[in-house]
Amino acid sequence: MSRKEKIRHYRKNSASAFGVILKPGREQSVLNRHHWIFSGAIQSYPANFVDGEIYPVFSSKGELLGHGYFNRRCSLAGRLVSFGQLGPHDSLKNHLAEALKLRQLVYKQTEAVRLVNGESDHLPGLIVDRYGPGLVIQISTLGMEKLKSFLVKQLAGLLQPEFIYEKSLLPSRKEEGLEDFEGLLYGQIREPVLIEEQGIKFKVYLSEAQKTGFFLDQREMRQLVRQIAGGKKVLDGFSYTGGFALSALKGGAVQVDLVDYSRKALDTAKENFLLNGFSESSFNLINQDMFDFLNHQKQLDYELVILDPPAFAKKKADEKSATKAYRELNRLAIEKMPSGSFLLTFSCSYHIDSQLFQKIIFQAALEAGREVKIIQRHRQAFDHPVSIFHPESDYLKGFLLYVS
Amino acid sequence: MSRKEKIRHYRKNSASAFGVILKPGREQSVLNRHHWIFSGAIQSYPANFVDGEIYPVFSSKGELLGHGYFNRRCSLAGRLVSFGQLGPHDSLKNHLAEALKLRQLVYKQTEAVRLVNGESDHLPGLIVDRYGPGLVIQISTLGMEKLKSFLVKQLAGLLQPEFIYEKSLLPSRKEEGLEDFEGLLYGQIREPVLIEEQGIKFKVYLSEAQKTGFFLDQREMRQLVRQIAGGKKVLDGFSYTGGFALSALKGGAVQVDLVDYSRKALDTAKENFLLNGFSESSFNLINQDMFDFLNHQKQLDYELVILDPPAFAKKKADEKSATKAYRELNRLAIEKMPSGSFLLTFSCSYHIDSQLFQKIIFQAALEAGREVKIIQRHRQAFDHPVSIFHPESDYLKGFLLYVS
Repeated sequence: MSRKEKIRHYRKNSASAFGVILKPGREQSVLNRHHWIFSGAIQSYPANFVDGEIYPVFSSKGELLGHGYFNRRCSLAGRLVSFGQLGPHDSLKNHLAEALKLRQLVYKQTEAVRLVNGESDHLPGLIVDRYGPGLVIQISTLGMEKLKSFLVKQLAGLLQPEFIYEKSLLPSRKEEGLEDFEGLLYGQIREPVLIEEQGIKFKVYLSEAQKTGFFLDQREMRQLVRQIAGGKKVLDGFSYTGGFALSALKGGAVQVDLVDYSRKALDTAKENFLLNGFSESSFNLINQDMFDFLNHQKQLDYELVILDPPAFAKKKADEKSATKAYRELNRLAIEKMPSGSFLLTFSCSYHIDSQLFQKIIFQAALEAGREVKIIQRHRQAFDHPVSIFHPESDYLKGFLLYVS
Repeated sequence: MSRKEKIRHYRKNSASAFGVILKPGREQSVLNRHHWIFSGAIQSYPANFVDGEIYPVFSSKGELLGHGYFNRRCSLAGRLVSFGQLGPHDSLKNHLAEALKLRQLVYKQTEAVRLVNGESDHLPGLIVDRYGPGLVIQISTLGMEKLKSFLVKQLAGLLQPEFIYEKSLLPSRKEEGLEDFEGLLYGQIREPVLIEEQGIKFKVYLSEAQKTGFFLDQREMRQLVRQIAGGKKVLDGFSYTGGFALSALKGGAVQVDLVDYSRKALDTAKENFLLNGFSESSFNLINQDMFDFLNHQKQLDYELVILDPPAFAKKKADEKSATKAYRELNRLAIEKMPSGSFLLTFSCSYHIDSQLFQKIIFQAALEAGREVKIIQRHRQAFDHPVSIFHPESDYLKGFLLYVS
């Protein structure tokens, strides 16, 4: 063996003794600062490997690429928590500080903010949201689960919240071998939590709520609704607790009709309306499936219709059925809307990308025999950044359409 | 011949006598309400055909698809001005009324608005912008040129403008066999035209200006700059007459530096600053090529950098060189910007689509060795709708990036 060969041999052996080694050529995405490692890219795990623990990650040539946690149950087996030489815990601290700094810069006075947005903030598997005086966290991976007490300590120290509540209810946890979990991790909580957004108050019942409690990702779109709803009769389809409807009223809408399948969500919506000083004559709560509602209406007598359904495509295999469902939903609305009206329509399915969603709307308009123009595209909320190195965190898309 | 065959034979012959016939199967895009007909889709022109005149358009089976104008010089040979049975002039009137109605709904109080956005408003080859008391029109096709007196009459009747000024300076006119043209078509004009946007006054020297006078398509982005510029030192690259820089100052920026290659544009920018009550100490005018400027700076001491260059890819063949230029420009900026700063970067090249532009930024960030996050995507201005049936009118893309 030459000296060079010896060094290479040594590096390789020492790496394989305590780190995860990637296959030749599979280090490129990590060098591009992408967090994910699929099982097919892994050459070997070290002896006595434990799922969810943090290990150094090496290229096939024995170069240290960073540190990550792995779970052999999943095809998306590993996620890096640090790149390069920096240790994993120092890196986690840095990324937490960096994530908070960004929100400080863009949302000084907002009470409901996504502070940490997973991979986009280099904290894969972790969501942290601020709701007024407290925090809600969501954990989606075994690796992050094992870091929980470290994270709670960090968050408590950095932000001094009244409470840290965990709300980790995700189908993907099953694949990771995790049960769903919900509960208080730190401090004290009194429900409902009260938040204020642009002068509108909302009650959030954390323990009953969807996602982490509120749809923070639609903040900018609620502002858009407020801006255009003046003088209009508005239909808020899939209304949930009335974020859009309330923004419409605040913007001067003459009437809002909310349709949601959940009675509880509508009850909270009503509380929110009253809390903000709107009388019962300004809104109608319709507890019905939105497809049924649309099918039973001859015409939609609204100048603004909002369609913000749950994700129809929760996994790649749902793409076809979801495409059909989005097309049907939008066709039904477009067909029945009056001339000169606006449709604000969304898809939060990651597997339906922006271009596909535009095609779906195009088909729906053709089938409805109506002319449709894109007036605005979805404005991403500032606190849901998308790392340019990790485009997968871009899931929400929407259009404000003009139906003529 | 059977009766059916006879009817078909008759329809075909009468169609070919006075209309343009498409090849079999080439009617689909027209049925999907797309305005364009490429030369390869055309079966035959009628006898005595004249370029730029309006003719009925038939499918190969003799069905009337609509009316359009054609120019045999161009590979994009024809554009429909009406679909189905409705006559072309009635259809033009309807589309004009429809376009104005939409702007009435979304921009009641704005003085500088795009009233007609070409194909997106079903008026292919025509742009109409309102600047305060008057209108500026731009014509890009021979067919629309021949409709000019009809259009001027319509616009004068509908809107009673003080003037209608034409500013048709476009490379694409050459292909159509048209010279560039600029001049007053109607009424009286006094330069500069004064416009106000969100409380900011601008002088527009129509006869010296780029495009139709002002970058209306960036209206929503000027608002974004105003919203985020507070307390920041701002660099406005390719500043033109200072729309972004002025919005930044109005939003509380502590200093703005403008870089533009055109001395005249900077002179107008200065007039605009003074007109809005800002003193000379709040801005620096730097008359330099932006690449040179960036190359000569060791570091960019700005918390917000704006890059809004002219289109680097004016035609499909420019894609490669434009990709390189956008990458270089953004790399230079990202590399030299301080940690925790924002970059607002655009491409108005139709041939660089949104996905490609995102990849270019990704590459630029990698080359600069910096982490970059997408905080916002470009918000389209409401008066630049994109017909869902005509996605080609979607040319401007941009990102607000956070450089950490």
